[in-house]
Formats: sequence, structure tokens, C-alpha cells
Amino acid sequence: MRYLKGSMFHTPEYGQLAFIADALIKIDADGMIQQVLAPADDNYAETLSTISSELVELSPTQYILPGFIDLHVHAPQWPQAGMALDIPLNDWLQTYTFPLEAKYADLAFAEKVYQDLVQQLLSRGTTTVLYFATVHLEASLALAKISGGAGQRALVGKVVMDDPEMNPDYYRDASTEQALADTETFIQTIQEMAPAYPQGIYPVVTPRFVPSCTDEALAGLGALAQKYDVHIQSHCSESDWQHEYVRTRFGQSDTNVLNHFGLLTPKAVMAHGNFVDAVNAPIFVATGAALAHCPISNAYLSNAVMPVRRLKEQGVTIGLGTDIAGGFSPSLWDNIKQAVISSRMLEEGVDPQLPARERGVAESRISIVEAFSLATQGGGVALQLPIGVIAPGYTADFQIIDVADEKQPLDQFGAAQTPEELLQKILYLATPEHIREVWVQGKTVFMQA
Amino acid sequence: MRYLKGSMFHTPEYGQLAFIADALIKIDADGMIQQVLAPADDNYAETLSTISSELVELSPTQYILPGFIDLHVHAPQWPQAGMALDIPLNDWLQTYTFPLEAKYADLAFAEKVYQDLVQQLLSRGTTTVLYFATVHLEASLALAKISGGAGQRALVGKVVMDDPEMNPDYYRDASTEQALADTETFIQTIQEMAPAYPQGIYPVVTPRFVPSCTDEALAGLGALAQKYDVHIQSHCSESDWQHEYVRTRFGQSDTNVLNHFGLLTPKAVMAHGNFVDAVNAPIFVATGAALAHCPISNAYLSNAVMPVRRLKEQGVTIGLGTDIAGGFSPSLWDNIKQAVISSRMLEEGVDPQLPARERGVAESRISIVEAFSLATQGGGVALQLPIGVIAPGYTADFQIIDVADEKQPLDQFGAAQTPEELLQKILYLATPEHIREVWVQGKTVFMQA
Repeated sequence: MRYLKGSMFHTPEYGQLAFIADALIKIDADGMIQQVLAPADDNYAETLSTISSELVELSPTQYILPGFIDLHVHAPQWPQAGMALDIPLNDWLQTYTFPLEAKYADLAFAEKVYQDLVQQLLSRGTTTVLYFATVHLEASLALAKISGGAGQRALVGKVVMDDPEMNPDYYRDASTEQALADTETFIQTIQEMAPAYPQGIYPVVTPRFVPSCTDEALAGLGALAQKYDVHIQSHCSESDWQHEYVRTRFGQSDTNVLNHFGLLTPKAVMAHGNFVDAVNAPIFVATGAALAHCPISNAYLSNAVMPVRRLKEQGVTIGLGTDIAGGFSPSLWDNIKQAVISSRMLEEGVDPQLPARERGVAESRISIVEAFSLATQGGGVALQLPIGVIAPGYTADFQIIDVADEKQPLDQFGAAQTPEELLQKILYLATPEHIREVWVQGKTVFMQA
Repeated sequence: MRYLKGSMFHTPEYGQLAFIADALIKIDADGMIQQVLAPADDNYAETLSTISSELVELSPTQYILPGFIDLHVHAPQWPQAGMALDIPLNDWLQTYTFPLEAKYADLAFAEKVYQDLVQQLLSRGTTTVLYFATVHLEASLALAKISGGAGQRALVGKVVMDDPEMNPDYYRDASTEQALADTETFIQTIQEMAPAYPQGIYPVVTPRFVPSCTDEALAGLGALAQKYDVHIQSHCSESDWQHEYVRTRFGQSDTNVLNHFGLLTPKAVMAHGNFVDAVNAPIFVATGAALAHCPISNAYLSNAVMPVRRLKEQGVTIGLGTDIAGGFSPSLWDNIKQAVISSRMLEEGVDPQLPARERGVAESRISIVEAFSLATQGGGVALQLPIGVIAPGYTADFQIIDVADEKQPLDQFGAAQTPEELLQKILYLATPEHIREVWVQGKTVFMQA
């Protein structure tokens, strides 16, 4: 049993901010939250006075946020983060990304990169990650091992890209059969390893995207996901090119094709979905599949802004992703800010030469609290795991923020009059330095030096 | 005499990256760069062997960048940074901004805020700042004193907002005459103070924007700027509202009106300019006035993206600004990234429901190197000061970046194959922690603890 006492922010539902000053959070031996008490609760004082196990008491300048849930990370692309984003997508893939991903045949290289990436994500408050690895079975297993060993909750996919016409010879699955066999081995191996990691590691069926896979692979992966009842990830309607490619090959939208192959389920997360229109959105709602919004990456590779507010109004589950390394930043903090900014640019439009009324898409903006929801509660719903909310039955995954950082204090003049204003300042102004501690499943996995 | 030896990046001209490995920079007693030698230069070895004065030698993982030049900061708004950005502009001004700015009648409050702000800007590598203060003479002088005392190069304006119909009674100049008299006193006082600050402090004629000033004030300020040959700052065509307000009042564009009142000169910097069209841009070119691009702020308050590339192609001088606190971030690093992102969103467009060809404005993107130019070389040209470039005759204003930061190494896998790729990684991924030292006019003004 472990107790954490401090003021906390979270969104139990999308966009609905809850704040409890001096909350007392009771965490059981499995790292699950048993109770969250506010000072006004009857048994708060009594509980506090009788604690005999560990009590971590925060200072008045420290605040608890849920750990962030990153729904889209290409782990092998971490070395190229921030590089070559000025060149066209196809050059970026052929000149940088595919040659880099091919290097993960070398397990030692993979381990070196993955160890660093996992630490960098943890230190930025990211407690759960949905990872694309590479086509390589061994290196993909290593990613789960390293992330799990560092105390992070990891959902990892060995990538399938089997179509010889669409993928370079030096970097693809040897055959469709091999791709499916490796995926099945991967699922089984992760499930065998999982009990060693209390916070959970999970195998994920991972067709890179429809364009890189044969019909047989897509169908086989859908069947494997059903057989083992595991998570699924891929990309959906990210860009004009992807959206149109799928329509040309199948005469159907990307959403319909993924659904046809059994790849949209309540445990499925599709990255991007910028071009998922009002007709296709209900398919996400009906299947329970979620979208991972990656606003920084989208500015470089997606040709348009994801209409988050419209999709939310249609009932689609949405979380947030960094999309390393299409997105340069390993921080969901940065993506929360960009989600707000991009939504406002969708609403206002961009071209000053157009009349205001013709410039944008009315009622598209989301608030910073809604963006915070995407990174927490939304990610939890997307993954169908009890994460992202600070309430009984959820895992004890936290980031502890200190607003009194000596070099960069966050509300040094007391301008924030309400908890929501203070949270706005935290979300807009915190740097990695402000994250003092990160907990996953009740255990401290990162402490600021 | 002081020498700095290390690898350096800068852009002598807009978008033209120069890199010198192991440069030897000779700085004279006045803090000016006398010489920049590369190892291949004839006298490099000889100069190095005969240095008898101070030599600062960087480690191989450290890099020199020019100090950043922030062309638009509302210093008094710093306490509200990051707050209330979800509400309409008018509420933001009336409920938050004007009541806050009115508090600077209290000199003690002003000093407390300004001391913190100056340190936060310096620690983020900002060596020169063009500041809006408030209407208050004393507090505006205090800002110059505090910034100058901390070693920062400061250009400061006492704000003029004299129109009783457009400004709240509790926060405006007492009269037009008083506004002009205070501005003249401010100019004279700063010019008297200036010799005490080797890096320079400068008075700036500062009509808040056309809507807040009477014709008499605008004309009087133009005359004062000419009489004393000082800098000018204001806002120009920031938003639909401002752009249209001026057109309604004068039957002219904001650009024409500012020019008519003598407020566009080679020493003038106008914030934003999002709606400066192809017809008005040549007036900026002809007068030598510059624009301050504030991409983060624009996403919240400006209704459209500034067409930086088109304006640059027309020959307009452009620098970068944070626009604290319309922009939440005190960092030009953040604004460099957003400048690239916003330009790409202008090019691609935002609405996925439109056909790709109708969505954006072709050829609008700028590169990260061009954005880096805006924050350095562009700011120097805008202010007509020898800053922003690392070359003989320029001031020794530097930030020293360490890519080997223990917690967040920047190129730990050697993925960057060229200096430009390394700079991209630095610009996209550095956090405030990576800024180890900041120099202004040859003196160290910030060191990372």
C-alpha cells in the first residue's frame, strides 16, 4: 500500500476538468488506485491519521497529472527526429527512414536506441506508449523488454510490410507467410513475457498501412488479432496520397478497407485519420476503433488538419500521439499545444487573401483542457485500459509537476485565479525540467536529478 | 580582448546557412567581433598560439549560435502568459490584459515582473528584445534599467494609448499632450541612461496601435521619432478586426495610415502584418520598415497565417517575435518551430474536405533555416543594429548549446550527416536545458546552473 497526497488535475470525461486540492490517493500493492479522497470527505482526516505504510506528501507548489499516453511512436525513427523534415515524404522515407529502420536487424543498435528513447519519453511524463517497432522479430521483442524493464507500459507491434512492389527489397518481410508467422510468434512471445511486467506489456498486430501490405497479409493480420484478442495499430487516411491510393486499389475508403479486413476493433488505434470524413467516422464509432491525433507530424506530412472537434462530436474516440519521427518532438506536452493551435488554424483558416467567412471551418477549435483529455483520458479509452484518469480502478500513473522551479517558475505572480487557469499555465509553459517525478502502476520510474 | 573557440552556425543572409567548425572568434574590449577565423585560414594556428588574453574553448559537443532577437514582447503581460487563450480577444483584453497592465502604476510590482521576465528571456538565448512596456513613464524606465542591468540589449517603448473612446478610463494616457510629453521625457531619459549600458538600451516611440490613438497622437509620435531619430514600434494589420477598423476610420490600409503619420521608417518594426497584402508590402520595402512575425500568437489572435515567404520575396525585412502574452511562450526557439509549421499549413491548407488544389497557398513554406534567420539576421536588419550574425563588425552575442546534455542528448546516434542536419536537430529538439551560456556584447550574462 502506498499513499500520495497532493493537488491533482485530470479529466474524468473528455474536456471535463476536475481538480482536487490536497487529494489523498490510496494505491494498492498492485499499483491500482483504490481511493481518491478530498479534504471535505468524511474519512479524509481519519485515513490520513492512520496511515502506517508509505505516504508521499507533495509540496504546495507540486501538482499531480495523469501520466500521458502516446498512441503513435515509430520507435526506430528516434535517431532521425528533427531531421530532413523539409524534403518530400517519399524522399524522407526512401533516403532516411527505410535505411534507418533496416538497421534494426542489428540487435545491439536497436537496444541502444530503444533504451534512450524509453528514458526520454518517461522523463517527459509519458507512461504508456503504443509503439511501432520494425519488421524484425528480435528487435521488436527487445523494445517490449526495454520499455517494460524501465517500468513503462508498452504496447508494441512488429511491423508488417510484405508487398514486394511497395517496399524496398532491403527492408520488408521476406514473404507474406513469414510476416504472419513472425507476427504470431511475436504475439505468443510477448504474452509469455508479460507476467514479468506488472504495468503490462502487450503485443500489437501492426500492418504498417494498407499501401505496404498485400490483401493476404491484411486478412491474415485481422484473423490473428481476432484469434488472440490483441490490440491493432496502423495508419488511416493520413494524407491525400494514402487516402487516394487505397481508393484506387480497392474502390473503397481506407476506413472501409481496414474494417473489411477485421482491423477496426475496440482495441484498434489508427494513426492520423485526417481524411476520415463524416460518412466514415460512424464506422469508427460502430467498431469502437480509435484515432491517434498527431498534430505536429500532420503539419509536415498530412496535407490538412484533422477535424478533431467534428470527429469528437460524431462520437469517435481520439487520443494523442507524437508520431516520432514524422513529428520531431518526443513530448506530448508539445503535441497538446499544437493540437490547440492546429484546431484554431482549421477554424480560422490560413489564407489572409480570402474573406474571413471563406477562410476556415467554423467551430473547429478545441480548448487546452480538451487537448489535455486527448493525451490522458482519450488515450485510455482508445487502448481499452484503465489509464489516463485518477480514480478508483485506474492505474496509479502520474507525473508530478513543480510550478516553483527555480529557473522557470510557472505562476510566480499569482495571476492564475482558478485551478483551470493554473493548469493552462502548466500546460502552456512547463518545460521537461518541471516534471519532477513520474510514476507507473504505483512505482516511481523517473525522478528529476 | 576575449577569444571564443568553437563550432558555429549562423546565416549571414536570409536562409543561407554558414557553419565553421572550430572557429576562432576574436572579440575586442567593446564586445565587438573583430575577426572570425576558420582552421583553414592562414593565421589561425598563429593567432591561437599567441593568445595571451582570455580564451574560452568549447567542448566538441558545444555549438555557438547567434543570440536570438525578439522583436515583439509585451513585457507587462508576462504574468498572464499561457492563460485565458480560449476566450475572445476583446474579453482577453478587457478582463485580463488591461487590468493587468494598469497594475504597473505600482513600480515595485513592475520591477518584480520585469526582473523575472528578463532572466527567463536571457536563459532562453534571447539577447536583444524590442519591448512594449505600459503607459507608465516610471515603470517603462524601470524595464530599460532592469534589462540593461542584466546585460540584455533592450529597446523599450512607453506605450501611447490616448483615445478616450477606445481605451478604458482606468488605463490610458491622461491626455494626448501628456502622452507626447511623457514620450519625449522617456526618450530623453533613456538616452541619458544609455552610456551606462555598453550593450545598448534604446528608447522606442510606441503607439499601441492605430485604433488606440488619436490622429494628433499618431502625428506627434511620428514627429518625435523624426526629431530624435529613434526606433518606432506598433502593430499593423494583425487581424481582420484591426485591418478593417483602420480602413473604416481612414479609408486607407493600416500600412498607408502608419506611413502617413511618419511611423514607417528604417528603424520601425510593426508587429504581425498578417494582412499586409501584395500592394502594401512595397511600402514596407520603400520605407525600410520591418515586420515582426509572431507565429504562436497569430494562431490565437490573428485569423490567418502571415505569408512570410511571399513578403520575403517582395523584399520586406522580417524578424521574429514571441508576442508575450498573446503568444504563450517566452522562447523564440518555440516560435522558430511554429513559423515553419504555420508556413506549411498555409501552403497545404487546413480543410480536408476541400480538394488539395483549393486548400492552401502554393509555395508558402519556409525552411527551419529560414526561420532561424528570422530570429537572428532578420531581427538585426529590422533593428538596424549590427547583431544576429557572427562576423567582424557585429556584436559578440551568442548562445552556447551543448548537444551532449546528459538527460536529453541531441544527436546521440550520429544520425546527422551534415552540419545543416545537426542544426535541424538542435533547433527542433533542444530544450532550455541545452543552452549552457549566453553572451551579450562579449560578456557572459547567463550560465546554466
